[in-house]
Formats: sequence, C-alpha cells, structure tokens
Amino acid sequence: MSVPSVRHSEVDVLIIGAGPAGLMCANALANAKVNVRIVDQRASKIAAGNGDGISPRTIELLQSYGLAERLLKECCQIHLAAFYNPSSTGGIELTNRTLNVTAPSARYPFEATLNQAAIQDIFLDSMTSLGVEVERSTMPTSIELSKDEDELADPTSYPVRVALQRLDESEGEQPEEIVHAKFVLGGDGAHSWTRKQFDITMDGEQSDSIWGVMDLVPDTDFPDIRNKCLAQSNHGSVFVIPREKDLVRLYVQLEEKDVIDPVTGRVDKDRMGPDHIFKTAQKSLEPYKLTGEFLWWTIYSVGQRVASKFSINNRVFIAGDACHTHTPKAGQGMNASINDSHNLAWKIAQVVRGWADMSLLSTYESERHKFASELIAFDKTWSTLVCGKPLTGQNSDGVSPEQLLKTFQTDFTSGIGVHYHPSVVVNDAYQELAGGLVLGKRVPPYKFMRAADARPFELQDLLPSDSLFKLLVFTGEFSDPLQQARVESMVADMQKPHSFLNRYATPGDSRFDVITISKDRKDKFDLLQLPTLLRSHWSKVFVDDTDPTGSFGGEGYSYFGVGSEGALVAVRPDGYVGAIAPLDRVEVLDAYFASFMKIPA
Amino acid sequence: MSVPSVRHSEVDVLIIGAGPAGLMCANALANAKVNVRIVDQRASKIAAGNGDGISPRTIELLQSYGLAERLLKECCQIHLAAFYNPSSTGGIELTNRTLNVTAPSARYPFEATLNQAAIQDIFLDSMTSLGVEVERSTMPTSIELSKDEDELADPTSYPVRVALQRLDESEGEQPEEIVHAKFVLGGDGAHSWTRKQFDITMDGEQSDSIWGVMDLVPDTDFPDIRNKCLAQSNHGSVFVIPREKDLVRLYVQLEEKDVIDPVTGRVDKDRMGPDHIFKTAQKSLEPYKLTGEFLWWTIYSVGQRVASKFSINNRVFIAGDACHTHTPKAGQGMNASINDSHNLAWKIAQVVRGWADMSLLSTYESERHKFASELIAFDKTWSTLVCGKPLTGQNSDGVSPEQLLKTFQTDFTSGIGVHYHPSVVVNDAYQELAGGLVLGKRVPPYKFMRAADARPFELQDLLPSDSLFKLLVFTGEFSDPLQQARVESMVADMQKPHSFLNRYATPGDSRFDVITISKDRKDKFDLLQLPTLLRSHWSKVFVDDTDPTGSFGGEGYSYFGVGSEGALVAVRPDGYVGAIAPLDRVEVLDAYFASFMKIPA
Repeated sequence: MSVPSVRHSEVDVLIIGAGPAGLMCANALANAKVNVRIVDQRASKIAAGNGDGISPRTIELLQSYGLAERLLKECCQIHLAAFYNPSSTGGIELTNRTLNVTAPSARYPFEATLNQAAIQDIFLDSMTSLGVEVERSTMPTSIELSKDEDELADPTSYPVRVALQRLDESEGEQPEEIVHAKFVLGGDGAHSWTRKQFDITMDGEQSDSIWGVMDLVPDTDFPDIRNKCLAQSNHGSVFVIPREKDLVRLYVQLEEKDVIDPVTGRVDKDRMGPDHIFKTAQKSLEPYKLTGEFLWWTIYSVGQRVASKFSINNRVFIAGDACHTHTPKAGQGMNASINDSHNLAWKIAQVVRGWADMSLLSTYESERHKFASELIAFDKTWSTLVCGKPLTGQNSDGVSPEQLLKTFQTDFTSGIGVHYHPSVVVNDAYQELAGGLVLGKRVPPYKFMRAADARPFELQDLLPSDSLFKLLVFTGEFSDPLQQARVESMVADMQKPHSFLNRYATPGDSRFDVITISKDRKDKFDLLQLPTLLRSHWSKVFVDDTDPTGSFGGEGYSYFGVGSEGALVAVRPDGYVGAIAPLDRVEVLDAYFASFMKIPA
Repeated sequence: MSVPSVRHSEVDVLIIGAGPAGLMCANALANAKVNVRIVDQRASKIAAGNGDGISPRTIELLQSYGLAERLLKECCQIHLAAFYNPSSTGGIELTNRTLNVTAPSARYPFEATLNQAAIQDIFLDSMTSLGVEVERSTMPTSIELSKDEDELADPTSYPVRVALQRLDESEGEQPEEIVHAKFVLGGDGAHSWTRKQFDITMDGEQSDSIWGVMDLVPDTDFPDIRNKCLAQSNHGSVFVIPREKDLVRLYVQLEEKDVIDPVTGRVDKDRMGPDHIFKTAQKSLEPYKLTGEFLWWTIYSVGQRVASKFSINNRVFIAGDACHTHTPKAGQGMNASINDSHNLAWKIAQVVRGWADMSLLSTYESERHKFASELIAFDKTWSTLVCGKPLTGQNSDGVSPEQLLKTFQTDFTSGIGVHYHPSVVVNDAYQELAGGLVLGKRVPPYKFMRAADARPFELQDLLPSDSLFKLLVFTGEFSDPLQQARVESMVADMQKPHSFLNRYATPGDSRFDVITISKDRKDKFDLLQLPTLLRSHWSKVFVDDTDPTGSFGGEGYSYFGVGSEGALVAVRPDGYVGAIAPLDRVEVLDAYFASFMKIPA
C-alpha cells in the first residue's frame, strides 16, 4: 500500500473564511493582482439571514472598487429613522422622526440594506471576473508560523504553513495539502479557528440581553414600516429594519427566562420558535397591527469583546468577527468586517509588491483595534439605552427620547467618523492648510470640473482603491503669475532626484497618481501652461468651478479649507488622508513616504 | 435528385438590418416579449467608424430600457461647444464657447460620443440576455405583402412573406427560408432594399458639400480639443468631436474638385487619402498644431432626403437611414434611427398583444415623418451656415459667429424638442392643467420623494419603456379634506365598470401603471388614508417634498405647472405625454383610450 505524498504549494496570501471580511480581502487583493487563495469549510454559499446593513462609508468604499453600483441597484435605502415610545393611552406613539444618516458629508446619505448572501455575491462575482474562486469544503487543520527572525523579516519568504483538509473528496484530489503562505488572514468569524490557534484572547463580556431576529414580508398599518424604527414599548423594544423588495427585518427584545436553558445557562433555540418572537413583536407594536409570514429567524445573545491582538508578527492577521463581537443593534457587523479588510488589503499589496516595508503592516492593528474599541464602547452605550425601559409616568428614570436621539445622531454609525491616529502612514503636520481634509479621515466627496472638457467629477471617484497613493496638488490660482511661480518652483523640487516621485519610481509602473486641482475658474485656466509633471494626461487636471449648467460645485477650496496658497495632499490607497504639505515644502512628503516606502531594488 | 422543400416559418416581427434602427427595435420588442427575428447580410459586427453621437434625449430613452448605464460608463461626455473664426493675424481664434446642450430640461446635460460598434454592442448584449441574436450572412431576396383586405385588417394574420437566403451555408442548413411575418421592419440603411421593393420614393436633393471624416488620437496645442468645436477658417470648416478615451473625430470640409470623379460625378474615395484630409484639417486649425495617427477614415457626400412613406399598410415599416438621409454635421443620424424604432416598437407590441387597434400604427408615420422633415430642414440651415465662408473683412456677407450660435442653440439637436402633433395617442385638451407636461412631448425629469420611505426618485425612472401606459395621478394636497373628497370621487369614477381601468383590464396583467403624486409635504401626508386604487403597492406613491437632506426637489407641482386642484396625466409607453384631464373628468381618459385600445376578447 503506497502512502500518497502530501501536496505542497505556495501562495502570497491565504484567507481562511469566506464571510464579508474574507471576501472583501480576497477581492481587494485580486484587484491588486496579488496571488491569493480563499478557503471555507462550508460546502456552499449562505442563502439567507446574517447581517444586512451597509453604512454610508461602506458604500463609498465599495464604490472605490467599482462594486457599489450593483449594491445600490439591489438594496433598500433607509433615509429616515423613527422612534416610538409608550403613549398615554397604552401602546406606542411616534416621538421623533429624523434623518437616519446625520453625517453631513455622506456621499450616500442613507443606509443600504440587503441580505448578506446578495452582498457576498457582489464580491464573489467580482472575484470570479478576476479569476479567484472560493475553495469550499476546505478546512484548515493546523497552522504554524516560523520562529526564524530572518525568515519573518524577509517579505519574500513563506513563513506560514497551513495544512488544509478537503472535506469533499469527490473530485479525486488529494484530501490534504500543505500551503506555504507569505501572509494568512483569518476571517473565520466569532469563533475564529485562526484566533484560537494563536491563543489570542478576547477582552470584554457577554451581553446580558437576548434578541430574536426575523425577516418577513409584513402586512401592517404601522406608518414607519419602510423606515428604520426603534419602538420602545412597555413590553420590550423592537427594531424595524426595512429591506430589499418588500422584506422587513425585526429585532425583538426577548426575556431571558424564555430562551435560556437553566441548566447550561446558554441560549436554547428550541425553547422559543418564531411564533413567540412574532407575538412579542406584535405586542410591542400595538396599537398597530402586524401580520406576515417569516422567511428566516434566529435568536442571539452576543458578547461585546475585542481581540487582544489583530496580528501575529504581521504574518497572520484576523479580521471581522474574529476580532470583535458586538450586538447587531447599531448595524455595524458587516461594515466593521469589510472596513477591516479594506484597511489591511492595500498594505499587504504594497508589501508583496516590494513597495513598502513590513512595518507598514503594524498599522493594521493600531488603526483597526482603535476602531474596534470605539465600536464596542458605542455598542455598549447604545445597547443599554435600547434595552432599557422607556421613560414613562410609572418609570421616571427610564430612557428618554432625547437621550436616545442624541446617542443615535453620531457620525460613528455612518462609518464616516472613523479617524486613524498619527502613524507612519498618517502624518500630523500642516492640518491647517486643508482643514476639510482631516489627517487620518477619509476624503469627503466634492465635485470638481475637469479642465479639458468641463466634465464634472466626484473627487472620491478619482481616488479608486487601486494600490496607488494619490497626490492631490491644490495649485491655488494658477492664473496668478505669483502663484504660478510658486507652483513651478514646487515642480522643480519634485523633479529632483531625491524627491519621492523619483526615489520610488519604478520604470513604467508609478506608485503615485498625480491629480491637479486649480482654484481658477475654467475660463481663466490655461491647461497648456501647467508644468507637464502636473498633467501626465489631460484627464488629470481639474478646476474648482461650477458644472457647466451652474448647478453645483465651485466651492471646493473653501469646502476643503484650502487657501489661495494651495497645498499638497497625499491620500492613501484606501482613501484616507495621509499627509499634507505646503507647496514649498515637498520634503515633508519625502519624509512621509520614506517612513514606510522602499526604494526599488 | 431530390429537390429539398423550402423551409417555412412564422414570426410576429421580422427586422431586416442590424444597424441602430434595427437593433433598437429588436431589443425593444424582445423586452416586450414580442416574438422577433433580426437578419443582416453582413457576416460580422461592424468594427469602427460610422455614427458616434448620442443626444441627451437618446440617453434618457436608453435609460428607460436600462441601457444608459453602460453607455455612460464607456462614452465621452461633451459639455461645451467652441466656435473658432478667422483671426485678424491669419489662422483661427476663439469667438464663442458655450453649453453644448442648451435645452434646460435635459436630464443628461451633455452629448455622449462613442463609436457605433460599442453602442451596437450595448443593444446586442441586451438582446442576447433576452434570447435574441442577429442572424448574420442572411439576405432577403423577395418580399410580398398580401392584398387581401381581411388578412391585412386581422392583427393575428401573417400577411408579409419574405424569402431569406443564407449566404453562409457552413452549418449545413437549407440556404433558403420563407418567413411569414405579421410585421416587417426595414432598418436597412440609406440604400434600403426594403424601401426599394415597395417603390417608396425619397424626396429631396443631393448635398453639394463633401466632407472627410477621420478618427485619431491627436497630439495638439488646440485648447478645445476635448470640447465640440466648429472652426470656420479661410481654408474651409472643421468639426472637432471628442470621443471615448483619447480619440477625437474630425469632420473636414473638402473641395469638390479633389474628390469627385469628373466622369461619373460621384465621390471617388481613391482620389483622396487620409493624408490629404488630415493636411486640410491642419491648415484649417492653424496657428494650432495638430499631429496624430488616424484609426479610421472615410469621405461622404449625402443627400438630404425624406422617404415619401414610412409604412406600407402598417405591415411593412422602414426606419432610420432608410427613411431619412442627411449630413452628420448635427450629430443626428444614430439618434433619429434609435428614436424611430423607440416610437414604433411599443405600438407594434400593443397590437401584437391584442391591446391596441391596428390604427395605432398609423401614428408611427405621422409622428416620425414630421420629425424627419424638421430634421432635414434643420440640417439644411445648419449645413449652409457651416459650409459657408466665415464673415471676415474680405468677406462681408459671410457667416457671422452670432448667426451660427443662434442656430446651434436650439433644443432640436438635443432631441428634447421633439413634439408630436395631436392624434389618437396625443390629445389636445386640458394642457392648461399641467403646462410643464406638454402633450406630445416627453415627460421632463424631476425628482419626487417616495411617501413610504422618503427615498428620492427621478420621475423618468418611474416611466420605463415596459409597454404600459402610466397614469400620473396628481392628487393636489391630499391632506386637505376638500381635496381628499375630490380624489375619492375621482377614484369612484375610475372604479365604475365602463372606466378605462376596468374596461381594458386583463386579469393579472394590467395595461396601466398608476403612480400617485401628492402635493403634500411628507410629514402631512398619510399613505394609509389614500384609496387603495391609488396605492396598488407602497412603492407607487410619492410626495412633492425635498429629499431628506433638503438638497433638491419639493417644487414638482410648480415645475410641471400643476395646480392645487391636481390633474390626471396619461403617459405613453415611450414616455411622451398622451392626455391630461381634470380629476372630475375621468371620461376624458376613457375617450382617449377608447380611440385606440381594444377591449379584451
């Protein structure tokens, strides 16, 4: 009897788990032409349920990968949020109806909801077009990281060894494979196998509230059934989340005694069926009538925890639910996962390409752990308010509508408030030159007019997630001879051999995309006068003018707080502001890029 | 030796010619689930050249079929038009730079340019998804129309007999087939075979100017190379039409002596190569420099003619270049073709479905012949100006920049000015109730807010080209009890058995889509109070309010000239206003639909 030799293979990045975090990362890396594989132990795609809310910032991010269009076509848009409280005559009544998204700079001023399977299909179809498929029925059985310091420090080495087991042997392949990877990402959920292999602890505690969730097509006279609602009744709280087509999701607060197995102390789904959840919801929404058939349901009680580490030696990473678990009440789960991977993918791509130092990868944990901690803190505050008894005559220390509304109206839930601290990729100087382009925050949307053809462009669309750093050159009024001289002097500085543009140049494959924005009105601006470095192509030059019909635009300098002296703004490949410099201090950018970029070999 | 029997087949609609007119019609009919075939004698798709301009109205129309998105992704947008005239120092200089699209109601305030092959691919891919493919290498050899009056009058008969010859026998099929069709469309170009079979004459004359056309990627210091330009120099006129990517198309006025064969009197392409055309363009654009390599070129001299008939017995139709030939200088060719078919397709679909009387088809010729005559008239005026010598010191009766600009700034070229005369499908009463919804013109864009979820919607997107008549019910202020009573009374009228909604009802397959628009602000409007006939689904009800962020909308009644008394507006399946009635005169609509609709069998 011959023992078959185990197959060995190499890959730049191996991703474990094909949920939102894993799929987002796989797609982003495939986009960046990084050699990536993704495995999942499930035999098939999910069909229903799970997360469903996509925040305004996540829509922006998907747009930067060309994925938002389909989401917007399929999703439900939630523009308003309504709050109901106990009325004096019993039942509930409307107390507030407000914008669901209160961040004024949101490009998409709504939340998008769509079942998670459909959202994952957007990633899966994009990946297919890029030649990457999820390897299903494939389970990791062991993972080892080299302890050799030299190997770990060498970005071209393959220090992670993962054994994969095929659960489905129908194709006659060898059931086992040893994968040698440069990097591994565990996007394998709240019970992450990857996390457990490296004994990464989860800090935090179990939530003490238990909720039922159900998707249904309702028949109701509840006036806000197509808006996001929080009804805090005397019988418990209910969230109403409208969804694609005629679907609505309900989150229903349950009483512990009805769902906890007294012996194990854990949630026992058998103790409560969807009928009981539905009856609870019906009672909470009185005097409004609600009927309908449910399509999916579950019960949950989750912990509010953050992983102590997001990475082992910048070689093995975890993302998404593997890093942080929290209640779904703020609609953040899928968003946090997608944004974790968005933050990580470009950094891995830069390192794999040999463009950036391994140290860049440390900023994944520093940036996303900070975010996760804030998320858990927000979730605790919000959950406490939501699960609390509402303020009534009988319950004078209950939660007031004002308290609830104030907590709701943050730009945290929109994802737009995310703010990364200073690091090697986030400078902290010269913020005053562009107050509206906050160092460590995403570039807000604004429309500029292309100089050559007067076509309006959304600035965010000039910042695709394509692995390149964008250099926004705000020239000031180029038609002013004094300012023109300053711009020409800056260009001379950039053309020096030690300038970052030359230092990190790879022939035919620049790491930078230079976008010029003049403060001039179109009719005063002469494109052909602009130094050629600032117009590598006619399509790269913009003016701060209104669109041709005069409907919008023309106030971009003012909106971004850039003065007539102009500014240089380096934007990271993920769309976050990395550095700002005056035109006459190109060396600020030289130092910024030198802190993590590698000179071509 | 056995003689193979010729294959016979039946089809609802046979289309001859897979250019823009034929493809548009085939796609629209496939969309409407009409049994359609389309044949073309060419063995393969076109690769380059031909028309390239898509007008704002055509973009709206493509959007109504879900085809605009891809066009907008691939095309060049032309926002500005520049005019150059001889300068006092020799060469040309800028005299005017203006909006390229001057129609204020244009939803897309620009012209889209893209090579015709790419535009045709949009139709072809859509058709493929609907299960229709062009049958290539297939030529009609004979066409006969029955003379039997009863057969011609019976919409279920197949009175057109077309013999098709397969030019490519590689697949072992019988080379000949006899197709029996209910309807035939000849979209077979300026030299239409279909038109000639029925001896339809072309009225008009040959143009006396000759132009060269070339597509190239230019290298130039001409400042308006990415805008539409007309340069009228002392050496002739040149049009600059920017195109997708870095392409530019040039139309170059040529001298007759250089291109006409003196013996035949016809254009001889061999007498002039692209180098000569390019040199002429270079000379006309001086002092600006223009170099580049051409990718495609041709020479043309076309007639300005209109077919005397667009149909034979409403059974055989012609569309596009088969109906009208004119110069490409106003960028109308492809647009006229696409709009011909857009006008025809829904009428054929209604008749094939048994919803409308054959007489509806007569409005194709009446509506499109009127348009074609206007197009030729405009083309003559425009061509004369464009081909004329420019006004200079030496040439005091030349064309002045003002003359040119005035003629250019019409809403005719945008396609938005198209205005169909009163007919069975265009009423002429009660225009005063909705001055902004002009009977016989397309519904202009405006954004309303959906009542149930405050999501903003573009009205045009509620009027897809889906074969249904749309009934826009402007209720006025429904929250006003008096107005509510009027609305309820109107609903009672509509529910009567003889009302059009009941008279033309087919169980489970309505011919109408009822869209309700209240003048109320969202917070005053109660959806559940609205009679159910006006809210067949929650998604069908809108309010005239601003979007949730207050950025746009809220003035729709005023924009459309609808007063607080409301109005009923019937919109044809092609997006043109068909009839208007006061709320208390539902019988006006009963009469309108009775003039062409058929009661279900």
